[in-house]
Amino acid sequence: MMIEANYRNFAPLETPLLGFLSQSSGIATKARVVTEAAGENPVFHFGSRRMHPSIAPMIGRSAFIGGCDGVAVTKTAKELGLDPVGTIPHALILLLEDSTTATGMFEEIYGEEVNTVALVDTFGDEKFEALENADLIDGLNAVRLDTPSSRRGDMLEIAQEVRWELDLHGFTDVNIFISGGLDEESIPELNEVADAYGVGTAISSAPVVDFSLDIVEIEGEPVSKRGKKSGAKQLYLCEECNQRLVDSFGAGKKKCTGCGGRAEPFMKPLLKNGKLVKSYPSPEEIKTYSASQPFL
Amino acid sequence: MMIEANYRNFAPLETPLLGFLSQSSGIATKARVVTEAAGENPVFHFGSRRMHPSIAPMIGRSAFIGGCDGVAVTKTAKELGLDPVGTIPHALILLLEDSTTATGMFEEIYGEEVNTVALVDTFGDEKFEALENADLIDGLNAVRLDTPSSRRGDMLEIAQEVRWELDLHGFTDVNIFISGGLDEESIPELNEVADAYGVGTAISSAPVVDFSLDIVEIEGEPVSKRGKKSGAKQLYLCEECNQRLVDSFGAGKKKCTGCGGRAEPFMKPLLKNGKLVKSYPSPEEIKTYSASQPFL
Amino acid sequence: MMIEANYRNFAPLETPLLGFLSQSSGIATKARVVTEAAGENPVFHFGSRRMHPSIAPMIGRSAFIGGCDGVAVTKTAKELGLDPVGTIPHALILLLEDSTTATGMFEEIYGEEVNTVALVDTFGDEKFEALENADLIDGLNAVRLDTPSSRRGDMLEIAQEVRWELDLHGFTDVNIFISGGLDEESIPELNEVADAYGVGTAISSAPVVDFSLDIVEIEGEPVSKRGKKSGAKQLYLCEECNQRLVDSFGAGKKKCTGCGGRAEPFMKPLLKNGKLVKSYPSPEEIKTYSASQPFL
Amino acid sequence: MMIEANYRNFAPLETPLLGFLSQSSGIATKARVVTEAAGENPVFHFGSRRMHPSIAPMIGRSAFIGGCDGVAVTKTAKELGLDPVGTIPHALILLLEDSTTATGMFEEIYGEEVNTVALVDTFGDEKFEALENADLIDGLNAVRLDTPSSRRGDMLEIAQEVRWELDLHGFTDVNIFISGGLDEESIPELNEVADAYGVGTAISSAPVVDFSLDIVEIEGEPVSKRGKKSGAKQLYLCEECNQRLVDSFGAGKKKCTGCGGRAEPFMKPLLKNGKLVKSYPSPEEIKTYSASQPFL
Amino acid sequence: MMIEANYRNFAPLETPLLGFLSQSSGIATKARVVTEAAGENPVFHFGSRRMHPSIAPMIGRSAFIGGCDGVAVTKTAKELGLDPVGTIPHALILLLEDSTTATGMFEEIYGEEVNTVALVDTFGDEKFEALENADLIDGLNAVRLDTPSSRRGDMLEIAQEVRWELDLHGFTDVNIFISGGLDEESIPELNEVADAYGVGTAISSAPVVDFSLDIVEIEGEPVSKRGKKSGAKQLYLCEECNQRLVDSFGAGKKKCTGCGGRAEPFMKPLLKNGKLVKSYPSPEEIKTYSASQPFL
Amino acid sequence: MMIEANYRNFAPLETPLLGFLSQSSGIATKARVVTEAAGENPVFHFGSRRMHPSIAPMIGRSAFIGGCDGVAVTKTAKELGLDPVGTIPHALILLLEDSTTATGMFEEIYGEEVNTVALVDTFGDEKFEALENADLIDGLNAVRLDTPSSRRGDMLEIAQEVRWELDLHGFTDVNIFISGGLDEESIPELNEVADAYGVGTAISSAPVVDFSLDIVEIEGEPVSKRGKKSGAKQLYLCEECNQRLVDSFGAGKKKCTGCGGRAEPFMKPLLKNGKLVKSYPSPEEIKTYSASQPFL
Repeated sequence: MMIEANYRNFAPLETPLLGFLSQSSGIATKARVVTEAAGENPVFHFGSRRMHPSIAPMIGRSAFIGGCDGVAVTKTAKELGLDPVGTIPHALILLLEDSTTATGMFEEIYGEEVNTVALVDTFGDEKFEALENADLIDGLNAVRLDTPSSRRGDMLEIAQEVRWELDLHGFTDVNIFISGGLDEESIPELNEVADAYGVGTAISSAPVVDFSLDIVEIEGEPVSKRGKKSGAKQLYLCEECNQRLVDSFGAGKKKCTGCGGRAEPFMKPLLKNGKLVKSYPSPEEIKTYSASQPFL
Repeated sequence: MMIEANYRNFAPLETPLLGFLSQSSGIATKARVVTEAAGENPVFHFGSRRMHPSIAPMIGRSAFIGGCDGVAVTKTAKELGLDPVGTIPHALILLLEDSTTATGMFEEIYGEEVNTVALVDTFGDEKFEALENADLIDGLNAVRLDTPSSRRGDMLEIAQEVRWELDLHGFTDVNIFISGGLDEESIPELNEVADAYGVGTAISSAPVVDFSLDIVEIEGEPVSKRGKKSGAKQLYLCEECNQRLVDSFGAGKKKCTGCGGRAEPFMKPLLKNGKLVKSYPSPEEIKTYSASQPFL
Repeated sequence: MMIEANYRNFAPLETPLLGFLSQSSGIATKARVVTEAAGENPVFHFGSRRMHPSIAPMIGRSAFIGGCDGVAVTKTAKELGLDPVGTIPHALILLLEDSTTATGMFEEIYGEEVNTVALVDTFGDEKFEALENADLIDGLNAVRLDTPSSRRGDMLEIAQEVRWELDLHGFTDVNIFISGGLDEESIPELNEVADAYGVGTAISSAPVVDFSLDIVEIEGEPVSKRGKKSGAKQLYLCEECNQRLVDSFGAGKKKCTGCGGRAEPFMKPLLKNGKLVKSYPSPEEIKTYSASQPFL
Repeated sequence: MMIEANYRNFAPLETPLLGFLSQSSGIATKARVVTEAAGENPVFHFGSRRMHPSIAPMIGRSAFIGGCDGVAVTKTAKELGLDPVGTIPHALILLLEDSTTATGMFEEIYGEEVNTVALVDTFGDEKFEALENADLIDGLNAVRLDTPSSRRGDMLEIAQEVRWELDLHGFTDVNIFISGGLDEESIPELNEVADAYGVGTAISSAPVVDFSLDIVEIEGEPVSKRGKKSGAKQLYLCEECNQRLVDSFGAGKKKCTGCGGRAEPFMKPLLKNGKLVKSYPSPEEIKTYSASQPFL
Repeated sequence: MMIEANYRNFAPLETPLLGFLSQSSGIATKARVVTEAAGENPVFHFGSRRMHPSIAPMIGRSAFIGGCDGVAVTKTAKELGLDPVGTIPHALILLLEDSTTATGMFEEIYGEEVNTVALVDTFGDEKFEALENADLIDGLNAVRLDTPSSRRGDMLEIAQEVRWELDLHGFTDVNIFISGGLDEESIPELNEVADAYGVGTAISSAPVVDFSLDIVEIEGEPVSKRGKKSGAKQLYLCEECNQRLVDSFGAGKKKCTGCGGRAEPFMKPLLKNGKLVKSYPSPEEIKTYSASQPFL
Repeated sequence: MMIEANYRNFAPLETPLLGFLSQSSGIATKARVVTEAAGENPVFHFGSRRMHPSIAPMIGRSAFIGGCDGVAVTKTAKELGLDPVGTIPHALILLLEDSTTATGMFEEIYGEEVNTVALVDTFGDEKFEALENADLIDGLNAVRLDTPSSRRGDMLEIAQEVRWELDLHGFTDVNIFISGGLDEESIPELNEVADAYGVGTAISSAPVVDFSLDIVEIEGEPVSKRGKKSGAKQLYLCEECNQRLVDSFGAGKKKCTGCGGRAEPFMKPLLKNGKLVKSYPSPEEIKTYSASQPFL
């Protein structure tokens, strides 16, 4: 998708602005795609470790406004006004030598404020580690399957087998949380058995959305290079069918080319005489607004 | 490629370190791939505008040590001890209303220190704008073809036609510089006529290299989760055939499994007792060393 | 499609007749396919220069009865009772050194009888040459985009951009005429912006329809070689659902295998005792009849 | 392949000349491709019945100079100074009710001047009709397998089976002639058992070679439209490695870009002051010359 | 399909039982697939000669209960309480030197009890041998087309041509029986003209259905290896929508996950205290029951 | 591959003989293909449980003469004069509740006569169960990885990880035995780490080799149906290049069509006057002879 940034004053901030828009839009778009794939199940953003640390807050914020239900980096969560999310790491289990010991300690210390999630693929098979944790930890909220790729022959079958065994032994309240290399391709078939997902790399290193800033008007006259439409543009939204249309800036109201309904100008001024004329929405508001738009 | 970071002390810097390693290694690797595709022709890194501005210096440095011959962001170039590179933008031509006027002004002001490169696709066809610039600008070093995608039916044919016309009119010294959406797939067939390339997005948003930090030893004992080989490792390099081998840390010298030659430990300590024991190489040194390694 | 020519007298004209039927049917069929692809937009036949000149009239006639709205070869047009169609060639613009000069002269000389169409891709970019022509030539009917393949990255985008600029500058009445290597694959996506097409090679060198003349009856007895059904045949047309059926010659009325309706014999005698018993329809009548038949 | 016709005087014969060049070059090229596929086995051109009769002589001549060993149309053969070739048609066998009767009559009447070839797929299976003909007709030269497509499950196996039976019964001198929908894809695997081929449609309706006539010079000055190289050109042939090179007309001798050898101008004037300065070669001479050129 | 055999007593008969279940289920399943593909046309099982003779009765029985209308092996037919089916072999025609002689003898000897089917591809073409047999044999029931693969260019066209000729000569009552390498891919398009099929190898060497016998309970406690769900299972069938569900053995009635209807336990005990508690159904009963189940 | 059985007396044993030849040749051929894929590593035949038990001995014998190093069915092994092979089943481990207990008991009872192989995927992960068995069982010969498909993400990586851990802990003598759904596609990449394979279904249910018995001679005269070459045949083997050739039975010595060397008749009479004139080779002899023939 090539989106033209439509501006009238050529500014020295071209490159930084474009870089921010291209990358953050790419991440938010991917977060929307992945969370749509997950349906009703929550998706938590786990993948800050694949990109440079100085952009972790941008990545987390973009993932959140695009639809993720929580983020794992503490600082990012704080800036978004959220509690960070996460589960026991493999490292803790390796140090304590046992999955149930680690889960038990976690439950003892944090159990009252936080849901306890057992990580069940460190030493043993998911099926048996899940049963042992459910047996030993009262109030266990979920087991997390982060199966390494060499053991991931059929993730759906593994999860179904864990679900079967938990149910057979009476642990119908223990949820199944799946993570590890997930994306919009692999998630949909897991929805029948999964209760939540952790998604990392697929969102963090999403493809950029290709913005560019081009001169399209000089002193009020439309002009542009080969390959670009000249003149400032307005975006129109059809009130009836949600179709978006592009036309030149002063074109006024339009008839929707899709349904014949009334299309209204969509872009509102953010700056006037160099001053903000609109209060900037919170991440929560952006997320809510974005979720209300149709998913194309 | 999954590379295991091999360390003995578990540290709070896991996530930032991994993020840096994953992304910068991905960019440097891609830069190597692209510059190999370009053969003898220099490749300049142009693409900072696709990623968040706070990582522009990291991107430029990675592109440089991976093989690029120059970078366009002024600050990055300075830190690398280089002069920044770049050519006239479309914006200048739009403002001056003519490609040759812009090239002529540039030549007049910078012509003594910098090579003048005319951008020849703003208003007219590459063939005619190239000839006009060559006619009017003495000492023109190159024409840059940045053809927009809607006009890019066959980039090789366009460049051959420009070369033919320049030669026919006696401008055999004017070089051809190509940019615009290039990568390792599209570059090789252009080498027969191109003299230099500008590459952006393909390098800036290269796929990350998937590093992970896992516990593989506790108090000297090898231990690791399912899916990971336990114990600290050493990397060996065969002195005869350049084959790389992995073995456990204390394994000593090895016989190369490829050619039977002698393989030597390859990793050297960087820190001892928390102090650097080796001076850190300059970007230039890294680039030279990296270029001396075989391209796989 | 293998069509069996159904005749009772073995004649020395086998080869010439088959050659005429095979090639002209192939061309008319292709013309139908291409004009269906163009929807409401007219299609003009331009491609006589790809086939031997002695068959140009046959090609033009076949293209016309298959659905083309006009032909470019003067002699063929005359035989069809039409005015020939065409636009300014690149050669005229090269000789006059300018697109607008050529268009202006054409308008001055022919403007009253013929629609003036400017060819806008000889020296400059389609966008700018289209605007210049529209600015200078009052009453310009259309611009013709015959973009060479090396510049034809995305024909739809080029045409949309030309349409946008013409509209922005008030030339909403100037039509867009597209030509150059078009066929039924490339035309449909252009319909949203094109107003007319010129199609050449795709129609002129259409694949032949494989007729053959085989003995299927001797002295009233059905006989045929392996691989052929014996006996003279009749073609039936269902009056209700337009389904075609084949049966033996004397089979009388048939019930339609598709809808159960009544199917009537379809072939009418053209010759009796060596004399024409039906007046031969004009090309215009054939074209109208053919267009009234369902497109399969 | 786009071949530029290189001429200095714009002439009214553009369209007819291009049509002749495009179609006849396409046919001759295909004939070369098909005869190369047949290796040492002769290929006869049979397919005049797929194209308009008025171009049959052009098709036959093009097929001949491209490599075919004979043509079936009597008039064309006469103009080429050849005896026409052909075999018994299915029609004769249908009328005489038997393959061997037809072959016997042919042998009796023409047997002394012409090779007798039995057509063995009219009523019976190729294997049995081949044996019957070989049994009854002394001096039978070949059997022709023209198997209809619905019975052509594996043409190679059918031909091998016929060869086996002929050999087993002592008819090792009877050749196998194959026809029916053959082209350069289907011929090579048949070479192990076939002795000759008849090829029709594949050659007659070969794709055209896309010639165009463009202005490339005006009053001695190179000029051309976008997408064309300007100036008159010369074709060079490397005397050592047969590489062809294109350069501007007056470029003189060239160094071969392939092997470094000496490349000589290749085009010789045919007309001077409107008069032929070279005698025009016979079809036989063109065929021989063409066959001596490397097949690319 | 992996079906778990669900049993409580580990028995030495594991391997033989599994082998029987896997192979016979595979064959019966394929027979169902092939007979569904044939629609209303009967399918006879002909292919015992591709598998070891000692399993011929098992193959024939499985083919029959899966849907075949008859079997060719005499012994198998007898055990199934059927008359064996079959037609004249090529060998008889070779010995009698003529298709019609063989058909005539067959008609004379068996004509009153059995339908006479002429095999029409031994020496001649299907079309002519079919007509000769229909002409000479009063009361001919069908012609069998067993065309060898090298002559099987388009089986549908051959059968249509035979049908056309039979009808044209008044033999509209003679049926068409097709055999030779048929399977569920090749049968459907033949249904428009075929009246019956003989299918062999496709059914006899059907892929096995992958049964396994695993321990899922020990002394009443559910236990199983990685990759298997533990505990004895019950199969449930929804009475409304025919959906099948699996649950643990004692789960009682279930709500259908598909339509919300009532799902009843489906497996009934066959043995109690080592004694059969249900009479074993006849092959005919199994076939009828199986045919009443939906085809998935 | 269609192999013609070449015989002179038509016999009632056609169907049984063909069934035996088709299926057993298919299995032996597949065994050769699979053992070639395994290179130097032994392959044991495990898969009797996928086919009807009454053909288990035929399957085992065919697998053995095709190249397998041992078979698992006791009765088959006895008939081949071999000791049966096999390892501990999952069932034993489930009953004893622990892999090492089962392995230990096996070692105690059979350890002196038979190699002890631990099955390491019942309850735990392959890596940890392999280490535990190696730790506890002195003289352990191998670990067997029979990973269920839902956990088989990358079998090569799992095996490499097990090898790494065994070596790291000093168990370099413990071999790796891999089984579970293996065939000629999946085996080659495992050779770098596997020491032996168990292969079942791929060999047991190998595709049949399509034998047929056709009359090719009657009373000394060659005769055959359409699609078959007539006359008895001899098979020739070139002594120099191992090429096989087919010719008619009495053709004597032949010149090899491949290398020009001398080809000798290859088939030797087995019966004369109804008596065996050659002693029948043992399975061991057939296996050795077969292995000496080139693998095509």
